[in-house]
Parts: sequence; C-alpha cells; structure tokens
Amino acid sequence: MTEAPLGVTDPRRPTGTLERHGVIGTQRDKAPETPADGQGEEASAEGHEAAALLRESRASVDPELRAAMATLPPSMRRTALYHFGWQHADGSPAAGNAGKAIRPALVLTSAAALGGPAARAAAVRAAAAVELAHNFTLLHDDVMDRDVTRRHRPTAWTVYGDADAILAGDALHALALRMLAADPHPASAAAAVRLADCVMELCEGQHTDTAMERRAPGEVTLDETLAMAEAKTGALLGCACALGALYAGAPDEDVEALDRFGREAGLAFQLIDDVIGIWGDPHRTGKPAGADLAARKKSLPVVAALTSGTPAAAELAELYAAPYEEGKEDLERTALAVERAGGRDWAQAQAADHMARAMQELARAVPDPQAAGGLLALAEFVTRRST
Amino acid sequence: MTEAPLGVTDPRRPTGTLERHGVIGTQRDKAPETPADGQGEEASAEGHEAAALLRESRASVDPELRAAMATLPPSMRRTALYHFGWQHADGSPAAGNAGKAIRPALVLTSAAALGGPAARAAAVRAAAAVELAHNFTLLHDDVMDRDVTRRHRPTAWTVYGDADAILAGDALHALALRMLAADPHPASAAAAVRLADCVMELCEGQHTDTAMERRAPGEVTLDETLAMAEAKTGALLGCACALGALYAGAPDEDVEALDRFGREAGLAFQLIDDVIGIWGDPHRTGKPAGADLAARKKSLPVVAALTSGTPAAAELAELYAAPYEEGKEDLERTALAVERAGGRDWAQAQAADHMARAMQELARAVPDPQAAGGLLALAEFVTRRST
Repeated sequence: MTEAPLGVTDPRRPTGTLERHGVIGTQRDKAPETPADGQGEEASAEGHEAAALLRESRASVDPELRAAMATLPPSMRRTALYHFGWQHADGSPAAGNAGKAIRPALVLTSAAALGGPAARAAAVRAAAAVELAHNFTLLHDDVMDRDVTRRHRPTAWTVYGDADAILAGDALHALALRMLAADPHPASAAAAVRLADCVMELCEGQHTDTAMERRAPGEVTLDETLAMAEAKTGALLGCACALGALYAGAPDEDVEALDRFGREAGLAFQLIDDVIGIWGDPHRTGKPAGADLAARKKSLPVVAALTSGTPAAAELAELYAAPYEEGKEDLERTALAVERAGGRDWAQAQAADHMARAMQELARAVPDPQAAGGLLALAEFVTRRST
Repeated sequence: MTEAPLGVTDPRRPTGTLERHGVIGTQRDKAPETPADGQGEEASAEGHEAAALLRESRASVDPELRAAMATLPPSMRRTALYHFGWQHADGSPAAGNAGKAIRPALVLTSAAALGGPAARAAAVRAAAAVELAHNFTLLHDDVMDRDVTRRHRPTAWTVYGDADAILAGDALHALALRMLAADPHPASAAAAVRLADCVMELCEGQHTDTAMERRAPGEVTLDETLAMAEAKTGALLGCACALGALYAGAPDEDVEALDRFGREAGLAFQLIDDVIGIWGDPHRTGKPAGADLAARKKSLPVVAALTSGTPAAAELAELYAAPYEEGKEDLERTALAVERAGGRDWAQAQAADHMARAMQELARAVPDPQAAGGLLALAEFVTRRST
C-alpha cells in the first residue's frame, strides 16, 4: 500500500501520450494529446511497444470507422466527423485528432494475445464498434457536463447545438451495435450483448458522477466514488478486452479475466489521472495544476482526503464548501491539504494495488508472458503519465 | 386525390384510442389516450379487431418489457419506469399509461400474417425491442423539444433533469439492441441491423424537424416536410412490420413490402394527425383546436398551404411571420386561411393516397385477405381518429 506509484515519476516512461478517457477528470479529457509517434526513442520497451500497438491499431481500425461513418445520414455524419476531428465545422477535411484510441487497441491486442493474428484481423469490426460506442458517450457527456473543449477543439454541442450532439451520439450508438449485428463472426452476438451491457453501466456511472457533483462534499463516500470510477472508466476498458477475447474464441473464464484486467487497469488509470488533475504538470495536461480543485471536483484523492478524519480533511472540507475564487484561495495550499490528509498517498497506493490485480488477471487469462506482452505494455502505458 | 379522408369523420370508427407517436404534431403526443378496452361495442369490425390486437399485443409484450427493464441499473430503471408510466416519480407503482403500443402490435401482427401463431410467439422479444427503441427516442425528443407533458404526465426531464432523461434514453436504446443480440432466433441479427438503421433514420428525421422549425416558413418545402414525416413517423412503423416479417422467415421482397406498408400507413397517420392538430376536437385531443397554429408548427397542411401560391397562402405567411398572441389573433381565421389555401384538402387527399399505397404493399406481401386482416385493421385504426 506504500509502494511507489506506477512509474508516475519514472523518467524512463513515455509521457503524455495516452488517450484521454471520458472519466471523472473530464478536464483532462480535453487535454493535449501528444502523438506517441517519435517519442519512443527515450521510452521504455513497454512504452515503445504500446506506441506501436496504438499506431497499428489506428491503421487497422480507422478505415473501418470511416467506412461506417460514411453510411450515417448527412447531418449525423457531419456532427460525428467533426467530433472525431476528421472535419472542420465548415465540413472541410481536418488532419484528425481523434485521440489515441486505446480501446480499439485493447480489443485487437486481446484478440491477438488469445488467438494470434487471425483473431486480431477478425476483431477489427468489433474494435471499431467499441470506439464508436466510446465516442457516443463522449458526445452525450459533453452535453450533460456543459464541457466546451475536447481534444483542443470546441465540443460538438457548442458548434451544432445540444439537439444535434445528442442525435449524433444516438446515431453513433446505433452504428456501433449495428456493426456487431452485421458481423458474421460467431462471437458477434455475444459481443453485442456485452457492449450493450457496458453502455448501460457507463450510463449509470455518468448518472452517479453527475449526482455526486451536486452533493455536498461530506456526503460522498470513497466506496461510491470508486464504484463510479469503475463504471465510468473501468467498464469500457474491460469490455474492450473481453470483446477481443470473445473474438479469439476464448473460454468464458478467460473472457471474464480479461474483462477484470481491463477494469482494474482502468481504475489504476483513473487514480493516476486524478493525481495529475491536482498535482499535474500544466505543460503536459494543458490545464493549470489544481484545475480539479478549482472546479471542486470530488475526484478520488479528494474524497479520500475528505473522508480521512484528519485535521487537514476539515480544512479541505471548509475550502470545498465555497466556490473557488481566484486570488482569494491558493490552490497549492488546497493541494497540500489533500496531500496532508493522505489523499495523494492513498491514490498512488490504490493505483499500485489495482495495477497488481490487473496483472494477476492478465496472467490468469494469458499465462505466456510473450503473448501477454502487448496488453501489459498498454496497461503500463495508460497508467504511467508524467506528473 | 379528392377522396374523403380515411374515416376521419366516420362516426362508427373508434376514436381517440390510438397511441401517440413521436412525430411532427408533438402536442398530440401528450394528448389523452382513452383506453381501447370497452370502446369496441360501437366500433367497426376493423376497430374492434384492432383494439383486440393491441390488447393481446400488450399482454404478450408487457411481461417481456418489464423483465428487460428490471435488468437496468437502478437510476436508469427509475427514470425508464417513470417514463413508461409504471412508477410514480416517488418510485411507487403506477397503474401505467404507456400508450397503446401500436409498434409492438405491428411486429406481432406482421409475424402472424406471414408465419402464423408460431412466428408471432417467436417475435415477442423483437416487439419489445421496438417498443424500447421507440421510448428511447421519446425520452430524447422531449429533452430536445423542451416538451413538458407526455401521456398526461410531466416528461422525464422535467422530473429528473436533462442528464437523467438522456441517460435513461441511452440505456433503453442499448437494452433494445441487447434484446435482439441475445435472441437466438435466426432472424435476430438481421432485425438488429434493421432496427439500428431505423434509429439512424429517426435521428435524421428529428434533426430535420428541429432545423425546419427554426427556419422561416417560406423556406420550407413540401417535399422536405414529407421526407421528414417519413423519417420521423413512417420509418419505425415500417421497421416494426419488417421485423415481424423477418421473424416469420419471409423472403426479402415481403420484408421490404411490409416495411413500405408501415411507412405509407405512417405517413397517412401523420397527415391525419396534422389535420387534427389544426381542426381537431379539443375534447378528443386534450388541446384546443389550432394548437399547432398557435405554436407556428410547420405541419404538413400548413406547408402545403404556404406553398400553394394562393392569396390565402400570403395571408397565412403574414400570420406565421410573428408569434401567436392570444386575443390579437383569431385561430379559427388562421385555420380558415390554411383551408382556403387548400392545405386541408391536400392533406386529406394525400392521406388517402398513402393509405391506398399501404394497401397495395400489404396485398403484395400478404395476398390472403384473411391473413392480412389484422394489419389492415391496425392501419385503419391509426389513421381513423375522430376530428
């Protein structure tokens, strides 16, 4: 529990290269995404491997995604292509900044780990479906959270209005499940059931998040914050891995183990992401350190601190009772209160714990270390962002 | 083209008993829905048969719907059960007023027409899936349209907020497609593809509707208004019939013919519904006559009138250029302008035309008049509302 965080401060690790997830730390969702390409030189072997996996995944999945989105009705297509960063608001082509697409990479890498190259090739449609579902939730979450920026650009609802953003999300949702329904692969129906179940869990997670942000800081428990993070972040990472396993024809117990692997890695990611949301390097995250504190976000380290029963917890609760005022409140002092209340240590220890559990699940499903290497690399990659 | 409207003024027809659709005339979507039960005595044979089909459909589909909704995560379930009228806002059980559920009845009746009782029994899940998808779109449309009443009750977003209404819609959407994915029937994958395609068409229809309501009355063409009505109303009625045909194992051409049957009947319904929105009996519709005119809705008779090139069109355009003011504008005079510009005759003739086409498609797919009787009865039922 006192182990160092998972390479967060390890200078050898690749930094700032992971995709942002639609998670608690929504600020970071719209943070810069430095391309992984060209950063591998200084990175560890895992980081290098992860960057290559993400690149190869994009190369496989993007054509499938573009072909699917070309079938959308005109207005839905316009909003979706804008959201993906493939078109500007005026409809002209854009270079694209659709994130690192970690979820499709998890689908393909899981399929490869359990079924080799043939399974990976067969799972490309499922990988695209997961990415479509992820982006449907981002479109809707941005409307609900009134977030104005994603991936350095104005969010879709700020450009096209709430109605079109909601409708484009609905259309991408339908398209995601259509891709699986139209896929003749024997695992496609089971994959669709799993993806639909995951969407329902994501919805509940988003509901809990929204409801929690409205409640008084003292009323929120650590258990429900962790459960929310699992639903909002862990569920879809787990689903992505499980779909890869299904497409590899893996037995049920391996499918479930890979689902748990993704969930645990997702929780580890969220914990690290929340640490960065408080103490992160603004040059890396695109947001000033303390942005989550200024927004009074009930992120995991904050809730851990608030529920610690320490004097610093009382100090933090007092600060959180009123909105942040620039000039009046020193965010570094607020961050120090979280730290003195044990929020930072707790989050880092928890991240290490969840990552260890992820590794156990991975070893269960994929005992051969070489076959498991890709998933290990991706898991380390998403949880080792620079502070 | 000058044929009398489809029984709109026929006193023998059952009245006010059909479900409201998520269509142009959104006012009527929340209008009273008198139970069909107990009204059959005075009704025609078709009306009597339709009422029985709707009742039997509810009896088959409701348990499936309730079982599916019981699997939703807690907060999604709460909002969905409220929306269906099965729970009050405080979570206590409600008598239920979930509409007549015409769409699941179309699924089951189509399956029976082409495959007999066994096909009907096999299609119950598909019927439930269509009803879930329909209700997902209602939840979202109410948020977008800021509609405050549906089925005599406050809409879900007014009770639980936008976020929960959007999320409950998303969850019902996922649940609908999950039901088909989990269904071992050989037609389930094709049905899921079709339902997903239909959802995308509904989204585009809702987009067009929203966009059209923002445009100046003179800029809206009759063709685009008809195309929008087909996407918003016809598409899901057609999809419901097509799913029934798929579950009956019907050949492609019959599936397509039944889809067109449903679309044409849906357009006929929309035309009649729009007529009622202007000249309807307030005791029947729960809204004063002229409600659509007061809301400046660009319903089909209005657009037909505006684009007629008549002197009355110019008068109507002038009235529509400013918002309705009670006391200042006589809605009966506005309605008269629509009528003198030919909007009412046009809508009634068009409704007759589309109904005739629906009958042709039905005869093509189901040549045996006895087997086709149920679908005929349902089509007549939805288009023969009292003025």
